Amino acid sequence: MKVPRCMSTQHPDNVNPPFFAEEPELGGEDEIREAYYVFSHLGCDEQMWDCEGKEVDNYVVKKLLTKYQAFFRDHVLGEDLRLTLRVPNPTVERAEAKILLETLESIPRSYDTASLFYGMDAAPVFEVILPMTSSSSCLNRIHSYYLDFVKGKERLQLADGVTVKEWIGEFRPDEINVIPLFEDHEGMLNAAKITGEYLDGKDIQEQRVFLARSDPAMNYGMISATLLNRIALSDFRDLEEESGVKLYPIIGMGSAPFRGNLRPDNVEDVTWEYRGAYTFTVQSSFKYDHEPSDVIRGIKKLRSVKPGRAAEIERESVLEIISAYCREYRRQVMDLVDIINRVARYVPGRRKRKLHIGLFGYSRSMGNVSLPRAITFTAALYSLGVPPELLGFNALSSGDLEFIEEVYPGLGRDLHDAARYANPESPFLSPEVKSSFEEYLEPEYDEGHMKTTEEIIRALRINRTANLQELILEAASQRKFLG
Amino acid sequence: MKVPRCMSTQHPDNVNPPFFAEEPELGGEDEIREAYYVFSHLGCDEQMWDCEGKEVDNYVVKKLLTKYQAFFRDHVLGEDLRLTLRVPNPTVERAEAKILLETLESIPRSYDTASLFYGMDAAPVFEVILPMTSSSSCLNRIHSYYLDFVKGKERLQLADGVTVKEWIGEFRPDEINVIPLFEDHEGMLNAAKITGEYLDGKDIQEQRVFLARSDPAMNYGMISATLLNRIALSDFRDLEEESGVKLYPIIGMGSAPFRGNLRPDNVEDVTWEYRGAYTFTVQSSFKYDHEPSDVIRGIKKLRSVKPGRAAEIERESVLEIISAYCREYRRQVMDLVDIINRVARYVPGRRKRKLHIGLFGYSRSMGNVSLPRAITFTAALYSLGVPPELLGFNALSSGDLEFIEEVYPGLGRDLHDAARYANPESPFLSPEVKSSFEEYLEPEYDEGHMKTTEEIIRALRINRTANLQELILEAASQRKFLG
Amino acid sequence: MKVPRCMSTQHPDNVNPPFFAEEPELGGEDEIREAYYVFSHLGCDEQMWDCEGKEVDNYVVKKLLTKYQAFFRDHVLGEDLRLTLRVPNPTVERAEAKILLETLESIPRSYDTASLFYGMDAAPVFEVILPMTSSSSCLNRIHSYYLDFVKGKERLQLADGVTVKEWIGEFRPDEINVIPLFEDHEGMLNAAKITGEYLDGKDIQEQRVFLARSDPAMNYGMISATLLNRIALSDFRDLEEESGVKLYPIIGMGSAPFRGNLRPDNVEDVTWEYRGAYTFTVQSSFKYDHEPSDVIRGIKKLRSVKPGRAAEIERESVLEIISAYCREYRRQVMDLVDIINRVARYVPGRRKRKLHIGLFGYSRSMGNVSLPRAITFTAALYSLGVPPELLGFNALSSGDLEFIEEVYPGLGRDLHDAARYANPESPFLSPEVKSSFEEYLEPEYDEGHMKTTEEIIRALRINRTANLQELILEAASQRKFLG
Amino acid sequence: MKVPRCMSTQHPDNVNPPFFAEEPELGGEDEIREAYYVFSHLGCDEQMWDCEGKEVDNYVVKKLLTKYQAFFRDHVLGEDLRLTLRVPNPTVERAEAKILLETLESIPRSYDTASLFYGMDAAPVFEVILPMTSSSSCLNRIHSYYLDFVKGKERLQLADGVTVKEWIGEFRPDEINVIPLFEDHEGMLNAAKITGEYLDGKDIQEQRVFLARSDPAMNYGMISATLLNRIALSDFRDLEEESGVKLYPIIGMGSAPFRGNLRPDNVEDVTWEYRGAYTFTVQSSFKYDHEPSDVIRGIKKLRSVKPGRAAEIERESVLEIISAYCREYRRQVMDLVDIINRVARYVPGRRKRKLHIGLFGYSRSMGNVSLPRAITFTAALYSLGVPPELLGFNALSSGDLEFIEEVYPGLGRDLHDAARYANPESPFLSPEVKSSFEEYLEPEYDEGHMKTTEEIIRALRINRTANLQELILEAASQRKFLG
Repeated sequence: MKVPRCMSTQHPDNVNPPFFAEEPELGGEDEIREAYYVFSHLGCDEQMWDCEGKEVDNYVVKKLLTKYQAFFRDHVLGEDLRLTLRVPNPTVERAEAKILLETLESIPRSYDTASLFYGMDAAPVFEVILPMTSSSSCLNRIHSYYLDFVKGKERLQLADGVTVKEWIGEFRPDEINVIPLFEDHEGMLNAAKITGEYLDGKDIQEQRVFLARSDPAMNYGMISATLLNRIALSDFRDLEEESGVKLYPIIGMGSAPFRGNLRPDNVEDVTWEYRGAYTFTVQSSFKYDHEPSDVIRGIKKLRSVKPGRAAEIERESVLEIISAYCREYRRQVMDLVDIINRVARYVPGRRKRKLHIGLFGYSRSMGNVSLPRAITFTAALYSLGVPPELLGFNALSSGDLEFIEEVYPGLGRDLHDAARYANPESPFLSPEVKSSFEEYLEPEYDEGHMKTTEEIIRALRINRTANLQELILEAASQRKFLG
Repeated sequence: MKVPRCMSTQHPDNVNPPFFAEEPELGGEDEIREAYYVFSHLGCDEQMWDCEGKEVDNYVVKKLLTKYQAFFRDHVLGEDLRLTLRVPNPTVERAEAKILLETLESIPRSYDTASLFYGMDAAPVFEVILPMTSSSSCLNRIHSYYLDFVKGKERLQLADGVTVKEWIGEFRPDEINVIPLFEDHEGMLNAAKITGEYLDGKDIQEQRVFLARSDPAMNYGMISATLLNRIALSDFRDLEEESGVKLYPIIGMGSAPFRGNLRPDNVEDVTWEYRGAYTFTVQSSFKYDHEPSDVIRGIKKLRSVKPGRAAEIERESVLEIISAYCREYRRQVMDLVDIINRVARYVPGRRKRKLHIGLFGYSRSMGNVSLPRAITFTAALYSLGVPPELLGFNALSSGDLEFIEEVYPGLGRDLHDAARYANPESPFLSPEVKSSFEEYLEPEYDEGHMKTTEEIIRALRINRTANLQELILEAASQRKFLG
Repeated sequence: MKVPRCMSTQHPDNVNPPFFAEEPELGGEDEIREAYYVFSHLGCDEQMWDCEGKEVDNYVVKKLLTKYQAFFRDHVLGEDLRLTLRVPNPTVERAEAKILLETLESIPRSYDTASLFYGMDAAPVFEVILPMTSSSSCLNRIHSYYLDFVKGKERLQLADGVTVKEWIGEFRPDEINVIPLFEDHEGMLNAAKITGEYLDGKDIQEQRVFLARSDPAMNYGMISATLLNRIALSDFRDLEEESGVKLYPIIGMGSAPFRGNLRPDNVEDVTWEYRGAYTFTVQSSFKYDHEPSDVIRGIKKLRSVKPGRAAEIERESVLEIISAYCREYRRQVMDLVDIINRVARYVPGRRKRKLHIGLFGYSRSMGNVSLPRAITFTAALYSLGVPPELLGFNALSSGDLEFIEEVYPGLGRDLHDAARYANPESPFLSPEVKSSFEEYLEPEYDEGHMKTTEEIIRALRINRTANLQELILEAASQRKFLG
Repeated sequence: MKVPRCMSTQHPDNVNPPFFAEEPELGGEDEIREAYYVFSHLGCDEQMWDCEGKEVDNYVVKKLLTKYQAFFRDHVLGEDLRLTLRVPNPTVERAEAKILLETLESIPRSYDTASLFYGMDAAPVFEVILPMTSSSSCLNRIHSYYLDFVKGKERLQLADGVTVKEWIGEFRPDEINVIPLFEDHEGMLNAAKITGEYLDGKDIQEQRVFLARSDPAMNYGMISATLLNRIALSDFRDLEEESGVKLYPIIGMGSAPFRGNLRPDNVEDVTWEYRGAYTFTVQSSFKYDHEPSDVIRGIKKLRSVKPGRAAEIERESVLEIISAYCREYRRQVMDLVDIINRVARYVPGRRKRKLHIGLFGYSRSMGNVSLPRAITFTAALYSLGVPPELLGFNALSSGDLEFIEEVYPGLGRDLHDAARYANPESPFLSPEVKSSFEEYLEPEYDEGHMKTTEEIIRALRINRTANLQELILEAASQRKFLG
């Protein structure tokens, strides 16, 4: 089974909408065009599709094959190129539960469409991603629902004794893979254990697993998110050796340093940082906030870089450092919650999404306070001259920093790329944080960005918010990512 | 249960596209707007929706309730107003079979959407129409598939013992009604028998049944279609008396005389002709080829006219007359098959429909020759100055005519409304037919329409077909219906 | 010349978007459909079109005639039905100046299109409205630019001696009428004088004039606006008698009491209040926030009510009362300016309009403080439980009120319709205003609306503004107008 | 003045619609996206825009700058990248005359928009193309209309003495260049003479001129078109030497051998064939019927290839050969006119174009017989297995061929690329033509294409034309161009 190396996703972290979009906020039809564009022009070999009740969700395969016949004749969907559905998690998103079943039910119809198109058996979709995976039971339910009911209902008999298979026909493929997506602290630390339980008793040689990098940063701070990922990657390596099952980890990276710092110009360093991961995501900013030729080169490198082995990691000491740092980070976020929510209102949307619980769609909550989703959260803080990467930094002693630099060599690069856009005079940048990172980094501040954050802060103070959205977009285009 | 009196359908027999349509050929989004328009402006109390794999098909309820909140707060969908889905018949439309299951699976989701919207239990959709019904088994399969699997799967257990109900939630309504739609000669003559078998063993007090008037005309000639309808209506009356189940027949009428002759200005006569029917359909021409105020008045009358009792009918003598007439009608159609197919190519489409087998979507075949669908068939013949109502008329003796006039008093009116648009000089109008109807009717020909058919016939002869479509549309707007 | 009685305009004062709109905010294409809908379904005989640089502005005639051929064959555009362009005022809107010229240049092309369509000379557009008219010079410039250059350039010679007429063809109509639209205090009081100057030396028997009712209310308070209108109407009556030119005043009414209080259910009272006016506008709320059948009935009455003679008015005492009331009104508005601007941000748009100076597009300013446009201003105050109709009411002695009631008998009705939606506990409703109108009116407050304004005020206080827009829309649908 | 090397045009000669198109037939909005796409992704430095009364035509600059701000900040429209308008020719397209004036009037507004955007004087549009140029007078009229009226009207005085400049503002740029486009036999042979007359008395150092290659082929046969181009190129070289004015010829090439044979994989040979031309056009097939990476490479080469000097040519002998060949070519076309018109009906459109006279929009006429436009003409003949490149070939003696091969070395390549798609058994391929080219070329026929043309011919014979359009598209995708 050819496993993809570069997964394009629909995370709306971009300043510039893609040129083929009807309006700045992409709808279902634009995302069909996007899927073709990332395959044919940018060179990605996988597109993740969010199934969240949009009409077009169950018709993606049909639309791609009918609209771009010439292209998909030469590139077989399901073999050369992959379409992987991200389904709602019924335990977490109660209201969306039925959408999970409808998405699973649509897989056989896509199979029929593709087989007709290619004139041979072709499974365009045979893997689904389950977000917020916290136990193996939910993975197993999806796996067995497909096996026993979506496929299994062929054998069921109707009133007059005829079977559904005789009446309606076959339902294929016979089975689907379920890819666990680990997003929170618990999930990350039990990733290998949960995956192991799921593999138990199944005849699976190869299994993909998915680690979130963007949402953990918002919940636990950037450094915790990166270190949690490294722990999970190293646990996966051990599971591979014990179980003999080949694991292919996917890691969900954005372009903001806070959410992964993966950009066309730093593919080599960042992929080395997360060695052990086999597939990297390119979100919207990577694809649309840079010159097309640079994006194409960056993706080519992403697909060619040799996948490394996950490094060893001292689990206990890492967790200890994280807990202190994480507490200070969350304390500082709680101080800023009102201004974050107020600014978040002016951050423009980039995708037509219903407010719902989804990988990048989490409306967070910390304690009993509600916060915007990760991308809007990051954009709001950058607009105030307070890059979230810096929050909680003052909780780290020089000893802590030395230890972290060994496990996370790219720390300096990520902090540096963020601190450039801090505004030292911002009233929302606490003195302790300012002095701690200025001493460690000696950053040179970006004049243009600083001036724009000045205007934003002034507009908020005197409540002249008519053109606040333009100012936020201006700062975002200066730093070439929204959040 | 309040049974609707006036069902708006999506049959594309109109010259003028509705003003709210993006383009002349209506797509899914236009049909959502159409549903609201026929409820709020025209006063219909039911909209039939063709489920044939369009993306929007499984989201109609959600779109109506979200887009027109104010209106549907005051008019409860499922009680005051009805949305009835026409599903594909898997035995007839093999390739569309899976769409039937997906449509049935979408009913619980629409239930959830409406209950959330109305803040109480609300079943917006609980009836589906099965086209080309030829036996009770297919009706029962749909009924039991919904009961045992769509509803029933709540009880099924997943790998870890949890039931689907605990995992995903409830699936309601518990049961749906299946409305048989009888379209061919066999179906019409066994309509009551098949309905009776379906009712057997079920606790049903009220049952709707649906008789096609438009497609039978194309297959067996106008007079046969009308008489077959009358036989079925009278059989239903007998079934009602024997079974004690109250039957509510629906009759599918178009505006062309050939396909029903139902127009805003002749509602009273035509409803009297088909007394015994409880619900009448208004297709696109009724709605869009007349001044809005006339349409609103016509629909008001349709909903207020007292439903009459079906008249007795001498089954045997009627069938005898039909068979002779029908043979002559089909012989004349076979003579014209090439020119019909050639002209049909230039008849503009009014709905974005995939070519498939459906009530009005039948690509007919007579013997081994394929013919266009009923509406395009009718439009092609009118464009040649040969109203299909006249074909086969020469096979009726004056005795036959006397007998028919008793059973079908409106015969003169329908033939008269059609013969106006004949072109006596048309090379495609056979001499026998011409002399037979001219003697019976003494029609006054419509000058404008005749001139336009002249131009059409000339363009075909010298193969100058660049503006043939405009000429066909010109003639159609002169007679205020397409086909 | 048949002068229209009911002018549909594009003012976005509606809660519910029209059902045929793509999205809540209408774009150019929706407004083409709207023009057809108000003519064919609602029965208006005139549509005002805002020419402000939208691509579709110069193609309205072509689109209407091509898209709705059947309808416009029977209703001649320019005779039975009128399309009147509202052009930018170059002296007020410097940046839009060139759009004025392009709009004037497009009139001959629309003439050609209509003449081709009707097969006879047909001038579909021959009148333009100049907003913010403050002198006769701007009226004359537009009139002479059309006469001397748009029409006149036929005579101009090109390099090789050939005239533009020989090279390109004729430019018709030869002349256009310019309708002055008086919107501010100065304009209103000099309306007749300016109109007289414009008529001087021109061979004009009939002249339409346009009085704004909505923007003056925001600038000077509701009572001032109504009385200024009455003064202008009476001045026009005098001008008619002196000049012998028949004057047809148009009055721009919205549905909110503050902006005219014209609704389908009170057409008779309100048209009597403004007798002397010949044409009344129906804005979006009148058309879309009521059941279609009521709207159709209301417009029918508007077109049939007998136009009355303007009543005499004691100019001096009226102006005296206005000045005191107006000062107090503006003082109270200045106190509320911050909260108004903050709430205005959450009032949803209903038309895709560039921010510009236009009849209803004025971004107001009072002193050096900027305020939102009239409709958003009204919506914001209603959302806070402070109907703007009540501001400044405390400045009126009982003597003043008695005097006003004679000149403005509908005062009680308008205040009553507004006060229903006040929230006595609103922190933004000053005690003096509350006591003054409660004593005069004894209003019964609308429970539902009051509760919603409670929630809005609370959300603002604790800065939880995520669903503030939904709350504003909920209150608006309770009162059946946005602003 | 940087003169562009690669002009993207809107000729619809493609099989596959661009992936960003709403529907197969591109509308105005798609063409805005296309302009951005060819600049940002494909690397063209010029886009030709057809101004033919589409609403969007006068708003192209505004839409590009507002929709793709980031890109156009870095690439100045009017300097780095060029937008050149093709205007209607009033002498040839009487009904479109007024569109010419409106297009010229829109140039100053685009100037204002760009200057505001770039914060400096910027003329995004300053060149227009006049199709079917047959004399210098029409060129001069456009030049002087802009100079004296579009710019000149600043000085004109209005009724009250104020000038248009004081009232409305400035109109810039002061002057525009007019590029003559020579398309017919006369035009081609007098191209240099006409250009010389236009240059007379004007202070012009650099002048672009435009030679059609696609329409002359349809009117006079492929070989005549190529040789007429070579004559004009050589005449231009002489004019350059005499007048001292630097000439930059543009040549309008399609991808079908008949219309230029310019494809991403043969850029070097074809540009060498037409040395003397400075700018080459890439039409839709070049851009959309090949893998994106090949297209980008092809355009890069097109912009980097060194512009050669036009070769000498023996004018008289060339004209002699052309006249005999041309007569035989037209005789063979006249024989096929009925079947061409019949098949043309099924060739799908690729651009929403009103039927009008324009570079590629000519509805041809030969003698008194009307023919479809060049692209549809070519597609129809290829669908019948009769590549138009071969028509008239039998009129050339071996002596003629030897002479032609010197002047037109690429003759063998072009004929070879065409003959591959001939169908030797086609009833429409005359025996003389077949034997003449088979002897000269010994072509190996493309099996797949031949089989498809078989099916097309059979469907036409038995009048089973339901899926004729699919068959035509299938053959087109086999040869990777429509026509």
